[in-house]
Amino acid sequence: MAVLSEHQRGILKTVTTATVTTLLLKQGIRRTWMRGPKPLLAGQDRMVGEAFTLRFVPMREDLATPQSWSGPRSTRAAIEEMVEGTIVVVDASGNPDAGILGDILLERIRQRGIAALVTDGVVRDSAGVMQVGLPVWCAGTAAPPAIAALTFAGWQEPIGCGGVAVFPGDVIVADGDGAVVIPPALVDHVCTAGPEQEQLEAWLLDEVRRGAGLPGLYPPNDETRARYEASKKKSGN
Amino acid sequence: MAVLSEHQRGILKTVTTATVTTLLLKQGIRRTWMRGPKPLLAGQDRMVGEAFTLRFVPMREDLATPQSWSGPRSTRAAIEEMVEGTIVVVDASGNPDAGILGDILLERIRQRGIAALVTDGVVRDSAGVMQVGLPVWCAGTAAPPAIAALTFAGWQEPIGCGGVAVFPGDVIVADGDGAVVIPPALVDHVCTAGPEQEQLEAWLLDEVRRGAGLPGLYPPNDETRARYEASKKKSGN
Amino acid sequence: MAVLSEHQRGILKTVTTATVTTLLLKQGIRRTWMRGPKPLLAGQDRMVGEAFTLRFVPMREDLATPQSWSGPRSTRAAIEEMVEGTIVVVDASGNPDAGILGDILLERIRQRGIAALVTDGVVRDSAGVMQVGLPVWCAGTAAPPAIAALTFAGWQEPIGCGGVAVFPGDVIVADGDGAVVIPPALVDHVCTAGPEQEQLEAWLLDEVRRGAGLPGLYPPNDETRARYEASKKKSGN
Amino acid sequence: MAVLSEHQRGILKTVTTATVTTLLLKQGIRRTWMRGPKPLLAGQDRMVGEAFTLRFVPMREDLATPQSWSGPRSTRAAIEEMVEGTIVVVDASGNPDAGILGDILLERIRQRGIAALVTDGVVRDSAGVMQVGLPVWCAGTAAPPAIAALTFAGWQEPIGCGGVAVFPGDVIVADGDGAVVIPPALVDHVCTAGPEQEQLEAWLLDEVRRGAGLPGLYPPNDETRARYEASKKKSGN
Amino acid sequence: MAVLSEHQRGILKTVTTATVTTLLLKQGIRRTWMRGPKPLLAGQDRMVGEAFTLRFVPMREDLATPQSWSGPRSTRAAIEEMVEGTIVVVDASGNPDAGILGDILLERIRQRGIAALVTDGVVRDSAGVMQVGLPVWCAGTAAPPAIAALTFAGWQEPIGCGGVAVFPGDVIVADGDGAVVIPPALVDHVCTAGPEQEQLEAWLLDEVRRGAGLPGLYPPNDETRARYEASKKKSGN
Amino acid sequence: MAVLSEHQRGILKTVTTATVTTLLLKQGIRRTWMRGPKPLLAGQDRMVGEAFTLRFVPMREDLATPQSWSGPRSTRAAIEEMVEGTIVVVDASGNPDAGILGDILLERIRQRGIAALVTDGVVRDSAGVMQVGLPVWCAGTAAPPAIAALTFAGWQEPIGCGGVAVFPGDVIVADGDGAVVIPPALVDHVCTAGPEQEQLEAWLLDEVRRGAGLPGLYPPNDETRARYEASKKKSGN
Repeated sequence: MAVLSEHQRGILKTVTTATVTTLLLKQGIRRTWMRGPKPLLAGQDRMVGEAFTLRFVPMREDLATPQSWSGPRSTRAAIEEMVEGTIVVVDASGNPDAGILGDILLERIRQRGIAALVTDGVVRDSAGVMQVGLPVWCAGTAAPPAIAALTFAGWQEPIGCGGVAVFPGDVIVADGDGAVVIPPALVDHVCTAGPEQEQLEAWLLDEVRRGAGLPGLYPPNDETRARYEASKKKSGN
Repeated sequence: MAVLSEHQRGILKTVTTATVTTLLLKQGIRRTWMRGPKPLLAGQDRMVGEAFTLRFVPMREDLATPQSWSGPRSTRAAIEEMVEGTIVVVDASGNPDAGILGDILLERIRQRGIAALVTDGVVRDSAGVMQVGLPVWCAGTAAPPAIAALTFAGWQEPIGCGGVAVFPGDVIVADGDGAVVIPPALVDHVCTAGPEQEQLEAWLLDEVRRGAGLPGLYPPNDETRARYEASKKKSGN
Repeated sequence: MAVLSEHQRGILKTVTTATVTTLLLKQGIRRTWMRGPKPLLAGQDRMVGEAFTLRFVPMREDLATPQSWSGPRSTRAAIEEMVEGTIVVVDASGNPDAGILGDILLERIRQRGIAALVTDGVVRDSAGVMQVGLPVWCAGTAAPPAIAALTFAGWQEPIGCGGVAVFPGDVIVADGDGAVVIPPALVDHVCTAGPEQEQLEAWLLDEVRRGAGLPGLYPPNDETRARYEASKKKSGN
Repeated sequence: MAVLSEHQRGILKTVTTATVTTLLLKQGIRRTWMRGPKPLLAGQDRMVGEAFTLRFVPMREDLATPQSWSGPRSTRAAIEEMVEGTIVVVDASGNPDAGILGDILLERIRQRGIAALVTDGVVRDSAGVMQVGLPVWCAGTAAPPAIAALTFAGWQEPIGCGGVAVFPGDVIVADGDGAVVIPPALVDHVCTAGPEQEQLEAWLLDEVRRGAGLPGLYPPNDETRARYEASKKKSGN
Repeated sequence: MAVLSEHQRGILKTVTTATVTTLLLKQGIRRTWMRGPKPLLAGQDRMVGEAFTLRFVPMREDLATPQSWSGPRSTRAAIEEMVEGTIVVVDASGNPDAGILGDILLERIRQRGIAALVTDGVVRDSAGVMQVGLPVWCAGTAAPPAIAALTFAGWQEPIGCGGVAVFPGDVIVADGDGAVVIPPALVDHVCTAGPEQEQLEAWLLDEVRRGAGLPGLYPPNDETRARYEASKKKSGN
Repeated sequence: MAVLSEHQRGILKTVTTATVTTLLLKQGIRRTWMRGPKPLLAGQDRMVGEAFTLRFVPMREDLATPQSWSGPRSTRAAIEEMVEGTIVVVDASGNPDAGILGDILLERIRQRGIAALVTDGVVRDSAGVMQVGLPVWCAGTAAPPAIAALTFAGWQEPIGCGGVAVFPGDVIVADGDGAVVIPPALVDHVCTAGPEQEQLEAWLLDEVRRGAGLPGLYPPNDETRARYEASKKKSGN
């Protein structure tokens, strides 16, 4: 889990998921944004961390039982193995009919130092979950327990989440636009190019606010690039 | 409609839909939560009541006409038959394209003493609906009238709502996690086991907040059960 | 673009989309409400304008490239052709995986005097988009750029948006219940019948609030009609 | 069930569902074709009859039990009430996960003189079903019994089937393109206009085979109409 | 992989998936039939075997590459580990856009003594696949290679296939109605009750063919049971 | 329409769509196969041609009328503009509820020398369509006319078909696995690499049939490549 240095984590906290996806697309990665996970609460801070994965498969009545909660293959067992500072990413096949976790388990996850929960499924006991205070990106809420519709399958395996492949240790960034995965080999690139891209887009937005037209401006042609570089020098950035 | 006593109604107002679904699952009922109905307004109180059912089938241009509004098989006729204190549950096949009811009909439903509206469809004239003040659980809002996409079929019949069978007189509980149905034969059980389960889970959550690990705690083993019983005696509950 | 007079625009600002759909249904038009577009911000004012259409088709890796942003067939080129006072309606095939526009382009659209954006797709950089202040009706938000999932195809062509046909110059009304299209030939009718219908429904709602039953009231029979006309005279409307 | 005379039944056996839908559309009925039902066997004859409806709602574990098979609200009870010569139309909400009927019940239905089965659901024990020989239009096959996913709700009620409203006694026509419903009030019209339309289209197809272009031919202008009428006289039809 | 004796395998080859699902439902298992897998060729024999599982997650452009074909986590590596006599069950999340396997790999699977392939995904190169002769249950065919839409994740893990949980070693039966999974603990029961159930249903079908009504016959009451037992004695079965 | 030479057309007739998609994926194009179009008749020959595009948008009751059939924006007008030897590709948004074309129009299309029809929609009057003999790739059949659910929008514009962008003049190949699009810039590459790939795969399949294991064989390592080249020389290919 040495993918992400504290320095990189700090940088990524300043880069929007919109910018991450643009940078990754230019590197040939189009499928990085997860369909499904949305901030449970408006205004949640951007979260950054390596992925700790959980995986469910569909319910089967002989497997998804209250007895399974105490077994070695259970969310309980997985939680006690979780690594501090990671983001828990849960593959629920996008199932909307059962809450993968409720307030008690989420409180334990918070106690274990997890940064956030990201899932293409839903959580339950939403009033309780909001009190826990762990930042959650999910596809909604439902009353039933996970075993009503899902069988727990394991942890720290490759998963799909919201149509995207997530492997343990991949880097996750989540904000108001949802959650994205950065392949480890591209973390350096995003950390280098991300802040620069944010700065350029802020300048471009200012130009548009002043009434500039788009041709030549966005994407910037050489003349615009030169003006941008000059403005950077001027402001000392 | 003697399914639910006032005493039971009072108890169920204190039991979350999350707990209801857990208890029913342990009795072999997994399909009790309706996919679709969500609180129209944040913070709506939990509502409890017997189901009064309404049913739509798809639109057909010769049946779903403005003239049908005045006919004997119409939402208008159904509303005048509604029973005070019930929860109106409407099968709209989850159709998102037409509002099953708007502000005028919902105001009349409120006047008739209905506790709440639950539907897998959508309502219309959302600004007006919010002013009515009847608690609504629905799948969203849409501008068109019901007849744009639906034909009214009848009332007090068995229906499907959000993937769940609802029969007239079944007991409905709706809160922030959505709406669930309790089969009449299991109402007693939920009223007995529900408050106990809520109390246990509150105690468990406290334990986790104090740093307790999950193995042996949740689900509780014999030692945990003993500690819980001791704590109950101590606090006099 | 002479479809809509200022007078008509003013009238339509007072007519709910719910009323528009009822009036159009009585004229034989059931498919006028777009499935997908919802107000990005609660409490957005009702917006009215002729449609200026944009069209995307699915992504293909050789077409949907960063280079395409500068080409003659691009959102940038389309924006510079937009007509003041129109509502931009964007066919994204309801694709939820890529934001069709972000803050910079939306700011430019606002600068060009566009009244609102309506799409069955999603926008990106939601924090930035909310700051722009252009009223947006969309199906949500996503981080990736349009080219992650879509190829820009053209502007001012017939499109589908949310299951509804929209031709350039059709009249769009959008409010809390979503967005509807009025065929040009029916604008006069809606402008005439709309305010009358709103007034009647307000009176009917009052009647229901006073405890009136629905039979004969809604829809109104002759006696109710007469009472309504009398009340109008009395109040001088 | 006096909707359909033997004479009309004979005529409708010669009219394709494609022609029925065209004629109904010209009368303002667009939603008449059921999405889902397809011929189980290639080359099934066109079938015509009044609808005898069956209705399922979703499964609930306390309702959809093997015990329910012997109850008064069961497919068995419904079958013994079926009316000879009708077409059984079954609302299964398009559920693909459970076969609504298998070979034993379908054999009994055949014994009762039913003309055909039409459903938006699936049948089970497909090998056995094909041996029964009752013409079936369905959305496929599945192994599980109905109660695995559905609760039987009743018969001879209004239903939805494949997105279309079907009321008991509506007239059903099913052929290689699927199944359509004719409102009773329009049966006469279809019986009159249908054969004429088939004859015209056969003549038009011949014209196209001879190399005629479409403008003025299809739809036919006055000159084409005159040529067609002349050809009819010549051939004595 | 000692779940299934040769004797049991022989018995299960005579039991339809329809009967398996009925028997499992009576044991409380409703979710055993996989939505998606259908026989690729009409008339395929019923196949029986333990499950050897394969698992895909969604495509990511840096993972799902032609280079991955030679890696240790690849369909190629999995195939060389396959166990003779098993049925390969592949979790493709029901993705219809990429063929999980084509003729070359399926030929190798056949060479390794696999009984059949079952998947909720699709295969590619359908002309070639049919020539291989390995019985395939799948959701259709598509031209693109797996990596166009899927990343290979591993083998002999718990999977979901067509909405059902399948664990390595579970028993699979596939026939014209699709594929079902039998939990190992219930194999004995199905082997005992299955042939008896088939015999009873054959007798019941005969009764219906002779004109018997359903009440009391199906499900059989005591009198019918007695007649059936008598007939069994008579025929010496 | 000079994209495709007769020589290239001849080569492409020998290359499977499976091979085309593999080659394009190696060039970075993953989205080339259309979800939806399947051969209407089993055993249809592989077809090759430039795309002539047609486009529908959703139905609106004032636009999608029988009168529209004679207008300048109609399928009839489009057909008379079709270019011999092309493949007509129709964007129907995958709508399953209305047949985009029936036997008369398809006969006219055949008369105009069109090679094939490819659509993500459905055709109508399936019995008649099969008699026409024009090869059709579609998503099924339905009885209603196009105007029951669709408005015709235009021809020779960029379209989406089955989730893939198709521009007029792109090259289409369709066979038993469905239909794919080749960007004009990659036609040469596919014509060069395609036959070679087919030959290699035939040799690999033979190797597997002889019992060869996959590691090192498929994908071929250097030693396998050498053996393959040697075998080619030997056989004189």
